[in-house]
Amino acid sequence: MPSENGVSRREELLAVATKLFAARGYHGTRMDDVADVVGLNKATVYHYYASKSLILFDIYRRAAEGTLAAVHDDPSWTAREALYQYTVRLLTGIAQNPERAAVYFQEQPYITEWFTEEQVAEIREKETQVYEHVHGLIDRGIASGEFYECDSHVLALGYIGMTLGSYRWLRPSGRRTAKEIAAEFSTALLRGLIRDESIRKQSPLGPGADIDTAGRGA
Amino acid sequence: MPSENGVSRREELLAVATKLFAARGYHGTRMDDVADVVGLNKATVYHYYASKSLILFDIYRRAAEGTLAAVHDDPSWTAREALYQYTVRLLTGIAQNPERAAVYFQEQPYITEWFTEEQVAEIREKETQVYEHVHGLIDRGIASGEFYECDSHVLALGYIGMTLGSYRWLRPSGRRTAKEIAAEFSTALLRGLIRDESIRKQSPLGPGADIDTAGRGA
Repeated sequence: MPSENGVSRREELLAVATKLFAARGYHGTRMDDVADVVGLNKATVYHYYASKSLILFDIYRRAAEGTLAAVHDDPSWTAREALYQYTVRLLTGIAQNPERAAVYFQEQPYITEWFTEEQVAEIREKETQVYEHVHGLIDRGIASGEFYECDSHVLALGYIGMTLGSYRWLRPSGRRTAKEIAAEFSTALLRGLIRDESIRKQSPLGPGADIDTAGRGA
Repeated sequence: MPSENGVSRREELLAVATKLFAARGYHGTRMDDVADVVGLNKATVYHYYASKSLILFDIYRRAAEGTLAAVHDDPSWTAREALYQYTVRLLTGIAQNPERAAVYFQEQPYITEWFTEEQVAEIREKETQVYEHVHGLIDRGIASGEFYECDSHVLALGYIGMTLGSYRWLRPSGRRTAKEIAAEFSTALLRGLIRDESIRKQSPLGPGADIDTAGRGA
């Protein structure tokens, strides 16, 4: 069902391309395939995106901005609250558009082939901000005595892998909601980091988190 | 430098193809590229592998077998020891051949396109065994009272993502060894799961693990 106006037709085109790239890979998808599935002729597709790599870049930019939107810190939060809030936002975003996250990950090793140096730099800059956020939160928790000593660099990379990697199996209609999965991940990590025994048992996700897993087994 | 005999020439060919597939993708690599880099003519390459997809399948089979080799359980081990031992073996294997792990992950969404149904079934069967091992260990720890209650399915998926996903940054010559990184990951997860406070603080990786991170911050 093609839509009435240009803006939503462009969105539709992007959604179709995202699904095709996720399923067949960017390299394995031709502009003709995109045009066929969206029901437009190729000239119209090129009106919206002058090249296939510009479609991929739009998917990338939105995925990177979505991940960056999960990075929202409130100075009044403890490190555990901030890590949990990041995880909820990130997984909610992935569950809403797992194909976009899939394209992002699947094409990552090859983006220098498709993108200009400036485009690659823009993407890398956003990735660095996400890593630095998670890394910084773990360091903040260590510095304040909230967390055990650990290699915050390695744990930040591991936790980003654990959370972002969920695009492989996280689905909007899955058995557990994105928020429940975020609570499971955060609880496991934070119970492993938090020093204070009563906080660990009773509120590893921070005082505001009203999630049944938080108290489970305590 | 082509080697003297067929067996090692085949290995060399496989190593070159692994590097090319990891860098450019399977779709983006031609048999000509493999032949050029390995310094053989294309007919000789086809003598070793009758098709490009058979090279990919060999990489896949070895990667899956390598992962499965990390799944080694000793009934005398506690769940925490078994999880730590799995992590050490897995990360050591990835650090030895990160390109193989990269090809495995990068091509995963498309393997039904390149492989026969039987080949796909063989790969999926090994993946299931790895998931069931990790899932089963967490369940065993919950059942014995060693671990807190948790969603062992979600945590198994998350932990596999955290550990296998390390191929993105784990390098044989990195700042930390694979064993040290395994200890960081396992300590964080296990400190989050273990109920007993003294075990959590003093030996989260089990009695046999002589790793400085285990006691750090305790």
